[in-house]
Amino acid sequence: MADKCCTGKRRSYASSIHPLDPLSVDEITTAATLLRQHAHPIALKFNCITLHEPLKAELTAFLGGTGPRPARLVFSIMLKKGTPEISEAIVNLTTRKVESWKSVKDVMPTLTLDDLNIVERIASKDPRVIEACREIGITDMSRVYFDAWAIGIDERWGFERRLQQALPYYRSSPHDNQYAHPLDFTVVADTETEEILSVDVRRVKGERTPVPLDEHNYLPQFIKHQYRPDRLKPIEITQPEGVSFRMNGNEIEWAGLKMHIGFNYREGIVLSNIRIDDPYEKRERKLFHRVSVVEMVVPYGCPKPPHHKKHAFDVGEYGSGFMTNSLKLGCDCKGAIHYLDAVLATSTGDATVIENAICIHEEDHGLLYKHTDFRDGNVISARDRKLIISQIITAANYEYAFYHTFTLDGTYKLEVKLTGMLNTYCLHPTEQAAPFGTEIARGLDAQNHQHIFSLRVDPEIDGPSNTVVQSDAVPMADPVGSPANPYGNGFYAKKTPLRTALQGAADYCHETTRSWDITNPTHLNPSTRKPIAYKILNNNCPPLLAKPGSTVHKRAGFARHALWVLPYRDHEVFPAGQYVCQSTGEEDHPHNPTIVDWAARDECIENTDIVCYIQFGLTHFPRTEDFPIMPAEPVSVMLRASNFFQKNPALWVPPSDVVRDLSSRKAVEAKQLKETSRL
Amino acid sequence: MADKCCTGKRRSYASSIHPLDPLSVDEITTAATLLRQHAHPIALKFNCITLHEPLKAELTAFLGGTGPRPARLVFSIMLKKGTPEISEAIVNLTTRKVESWKSVKDVMPTLTLDDLNIVERIASKDPRVIEACREIGITDMSRVYFDAWAIGIDERWGFERRLQQALPYYRSSPHDNQYAHPLDFTVVADTETEEILSVDVRRVKGERTPVPLDEHNYLPQFIKHQYRPDRLKPIEITQPEGVSFRMNGNEIEWAGLKMHIGFNYREGIVLSNIRIDDPYEKRERKLFHRVSVVEMVVPYGCPKPPHHKKHAFDVGEYGSGFMTNSLKLGCDCKGAIHYLDAVLATSTGDATVIENAICIHEEDHGLLYKHTDFRDGNVISARDRKLIISQIITAANYEYAFYHTFTLDGTYKLEVKLTGMLNTYCLHPTEQAAPFGTEIARGLDAQNHQHIFSLRVDPEIDGPSNTVVQSDAVPMADPVGSPANPYGNGFYAKKTPLRTALQGAADYCHETTRSWDITNPTHLNPSTRKPIAYKILNNNCPPLLAKPGSTVHKRAGFARHALWVLPYRDHEVFPAGQYVCQSTGEEDHPHNPTIVDWAARDECIENTDIVCYIQFGLTHFPRTEDFPIMPAEPVSVMLRASNFFQKNPALWVPPSDVVRDLSSRKAVEAKQLKETSRL
Repeated sequence: MADKCCTGKRRSYASSIHPLDPLSVDEITTAATLLRQHAHPIALKFNCITLHEPLKAELTAFLGGTGPRPARLVFSIMLKKGTPEISEAIVNLTTRKVESWKSVKDVMPTLTLDDLNIVERIASKDPRVIEACREIGITDMSRVYFDAWAIGIDERWGFERRLQQALPYYRSSPHDNQYAHPLDFTVVADTETEEILSVDVRRVKGERTPVPLDEHNYLPQFIKHQYRPDRLKPIEITQPEGVSFRMNGNEIEWAGLKMHIGFNYREGIVLSNIRIDDPYEKRERKLFHRVSVVEMVVPYGCPKPPHHKKHAFDVGEYGSGFMTNSLKLGCDCKGAIHYLDAVLATSTGDATVIENAICIHEEDHGLLYKHTDFRDGNVISARDRKLIISQIITAANYEYAFYHTFTLDGTYKLEVKLTGMLNTYCLHPTEQAAPFGTEIARGLDAQNHQHIFSLRVDPEIDGPSNTVVQSDAVPMADPVGSPANPYGNGFYAKKTPLRTALQGAADYCHETTRSWDITNPTHLNPSTRKPIAYKILNNNCPPLLAKPGSTVHKRAGFARHALWVLPYRDHEVFPAGQYVCQSTGEEDHPHNPTIVDWAARDECIENTDIVCYIQFGLTHFPRTEDFPIMPAEPVSVMLRASNFFQKNPALWVPPSDVVRDLSSRKAVEAKQLKETSRL
Repeated sequence: MADKCCTGKRRSYASSIHPLDPLSVDEITTAATLLRQHAHPIALKFNCITLHEPLKAELTAFLGGTGPRPARLVFSIMLKKGTPEISEAIVNLTTRKVESWKSVKDVMPTLTLDDLNIVERIASKDPRVIEACREIGITDMSRVYFDAWAIGIDERWGFERRLQQALPYYRSSPHDNQYAHPLDFTVVADTETEEILSVDVRRVKGERTPVPLDEHNYLPQFIKHQYRPDRLKPIEITQPEGVSFRMNGNEIEWAGLKMHIGFNYREGIVLSNIRIDDPYEKRERKLFHRVSVVEMVVPYGCPKPPHHKKHAFDVGEYGSGFMTNSLKLGCDCKGAIHYLDAVLATSTGDATVIENAICIHEEDHGLLYKHTDFRDGNVISARDRKLIISQIITAANYEYAFYHTFTLDGTYKLEVKLTGMLNTYCLHPTEQAAPFGTEIARGLDAQNHQHIFSLRVDPEIDGPSNTVVQSDAVPMADPVGSPANPYGNGFYAKKTPLRTALQGAADYCHETTRSWDITNPTHLNPSTRKPIAYKILNNNCPPLLAKPGSTVHKRAGFARHALWVLPYRDHEVFPAGQYVCQSTGEEDHPHNPTIVDWAARDECIENTDIVCYIQFGLTHFPRTEDFPIMPAEPVSVMLRASNFFQKNPALWVPPSDVVRDLSSRKAVEAKQLKETSRL
């Protein structure tokens, strides 16, 4: 990733580079060369070449000025070309040495977009596919497209094959809606041998399902006549004096907030070393060491084959970095935008640049605060502002826009907007979509599904040792009329510290409006004399609806709880495992532990360096309104200061209005006075 | 309320007036004159003079062109001057007759701001108050202020007195924070006789509590030196071609949406007759007959006296109209703003105008939708837009900003932002704030409290007969491995129609991500072949924490459930009763039924004209960050189209961008192509 001034050609990794900066073009090609030399004469297909982040202790020492610059390390996963044999390596770019190399078994790495293209390339030439199409009246194979997916489960093959499945669609014209004419068969392919392993044709009562041929388009060439440009007048948003943030490489400073913005093929945006200037304590205070979206799962709720195979782990199976949109052709944000590019590695070990992969911009955020003193008419109000660091990914049909948002009251909010296209399937005339889906248009079934995201927050609430305390709003136990609770109105926040990792696997409770305080137990707020904290607010966390024992429940162990709290371990990041494709969710996998295994260690999470995995999302019962293209549906999770600051941390924001206005008061008094003046 | 062009002087109520238009200045004074004449020689103190809305059947017939213009009626509550004797009357302005007049017993009407001023005026002269102050070292009574409140409960008096209580504060300078120095006594007053009935001094272990004297200011004259104007560059939001909506009196038309905007002393904004142009069915479809915030309660959670008396029903006890801010001196919104004034009646029967009481404006709302076809590089995106109709009220310490928001996908969202000042109390040196409050600054206790709002939605989902169907996301009952659910992933929305009013009293369920579909059972979506609906999304609905049997639980019966569904009855609007002040919450009160009584009738709510009361809000454990002025905390509830439209209802919105971009795809393919072109 590079700033606009040096796209593709990074400064050399000398003193100016931040240890968390993504790999540059040069670094990727150097690493690939070293790896190829090491593997020689075996030919490699690179799956990923990415920054191996420094050990936290080393990084912290370096950033604190008490330790040397950490070595610049690269992590790579590679396949032996044409086989499913996987190796992992670490390359030291500082010494130009391959530091480690190991084979890993019974795992499969991310399917890159390059990998996913294979099935589309080969499927339409397969005689079984051609026959399957012919049988439903399709003879022009150039009109048949295949959406490649990782395979949720297929008992016919194991790790001897690097599998993918493909869902076929017919397109009646080149720009036709890709999801309007789904076909009733699926394809399984071997990614490395480039073979179609099976064409699974569905028959309902022995019959094929006719292709749903109704047109459902949304591009201007089809629906331009429906546009009503007269209806909405433009809203212009400008920043005549420019943006309020300053960039230094990948570091940003905005309104007293500072952080590093990283990016990798898998997590996409990674925010690190997030600190804030405390106006009262007159010092910089750390909030979070690292924040990123480390996994997500989209399980479909139709029990009939082939839909049981659809549970997309978009982060782990495809990579939020690989799937990220270039925003260079018209940004999806308004105002003054600053972009960062993403530098990624291809399967040949070359570096490539996605221009404008990360959008950084500000937005007005309405009222920060307001108060009218009704008595003397003093009115004060100030406006809030957002800093938004965002990316948008395209995961075949769906779009996910990730907005990492900071506001002036010290709040961090991750908002995800879901848009794009529903996954559709064809209905046989004897079938109904309900109850497992919605017939969103004649013959088109959009099935129930969930989207559960995992936000990993490595907190450092004013220091590395934190404790998560569960907070439940409960009525007093004392009955109404008792001396302690005479009027029955007493209620309080019951606080339960989560002490070990198994306690740290916690669920939301609506009845108590549960929240979780990430506290620093050794740091008391001088007024409250209780530990300072940041509060996790997460009530958009639907339970995983796949049953215990089900494939999804096993594979997406992370989605079983709204929160997991674990002790920090270097490079323990991905809760569904480092290797998600074809994972079975078995526990104690030697090369692929998941969060369920980490939690099973049941280690201490009290007053120590901890990491929180926060699951949130939504359950989507598709609506006709979501078709032929889906209005954005937002879902979010929030971390909010909770007795962290001594006062409102935004009192430095000059008020937008300070006036004296008694008109409301006077208006409703019998005797009317006219008194309105600027202070 | 009047458009800007005719503030205060309304057009006469002839043919141009809408039957739901608020009373004009002339109408109020005419009604007052008629009522005074009727009561003569008894002198009146007017409590309210407000529109008596037409019967729904009459209104519907008139608006549909099948009935005559309804008579213009006024509803008034009056006190016999100097007494707590209450009368209700209805005046017919068309005939200039008092149509009905009745005495009501054992009830107390809204305390107007005028009423609330009384206690402040008389308290500081009361010898007991002066002595209570002297004992804690205060001799300058001009520095003591009294926040008047309705009284939650006080067994010492009944309906023979029109009560209010006052919470005293010391102010060390004229613009000092009103809530920085709370005093340890309370005052009870008779509003009509203007007597101080009691001064209740709290002693802790026999001692008074010293006045907390630390300064905690937020106005510029105190903290200007802390401002950092360098930190934030301006964001300009302009609409060079003006707004996208058209006003016709109090009716608005925007982006295919139409409604009437009313306003009264109690509910503030009332939205009526909300319809939308359906681009597919090519007809206007009704969504909601009437939408308003009809009640709220803020119970405090400290069981110790005097805090058990603090449970503010801001709508019913004070009136969201009476408390509304004039936004004329610098609006709290950006862009092109259209204002409407509010016309209210004073206690003398005069009319008064709050200028710019209602703000109507548009905001950009980010992505409406986006999709990138990764295969051919077609990128389309459109921007969403909000129409926001808002008001801000000052309820002594707190501010509530109500944003009625419509977006282009047909969604209605009520967002409330809570800001202003915490209610504070002084801590005796031997006391702790926890667990019933937070010591937000030395010696200052801000107590736990809840804010529960009641949004009344009278739906007409494409017609007057609707049914609410509860929707619960549940896993299939069939076990994993069974023929019906072989992989255990099956889940669906379990639908339960609410058939009678007692079933209609429903709670949120997190485990099933419960929502409620307001359906029109006789109107099927042509694709889904299920009833069209609007969905209530309300997961911000904390349970009432006051125990069953408690004063709050009785008085705020409406807050016991997240949803109530009732059959429509004319003029049955206020769920805590028409008369909330001094209410006890007793059931079957002859003059003051509440929603608990209405529900007890257990009438049919299926396929009939229904009304929904949606409770939402938050539980607030105060934070030091909320002091000395509170950053706005948002909370919202949403109604969203659910198979109401045949497709995405916003396809008429011209896309902001249609491009062809294969860069993300090509970037991660081994062979790099350069292909980017405008379509």
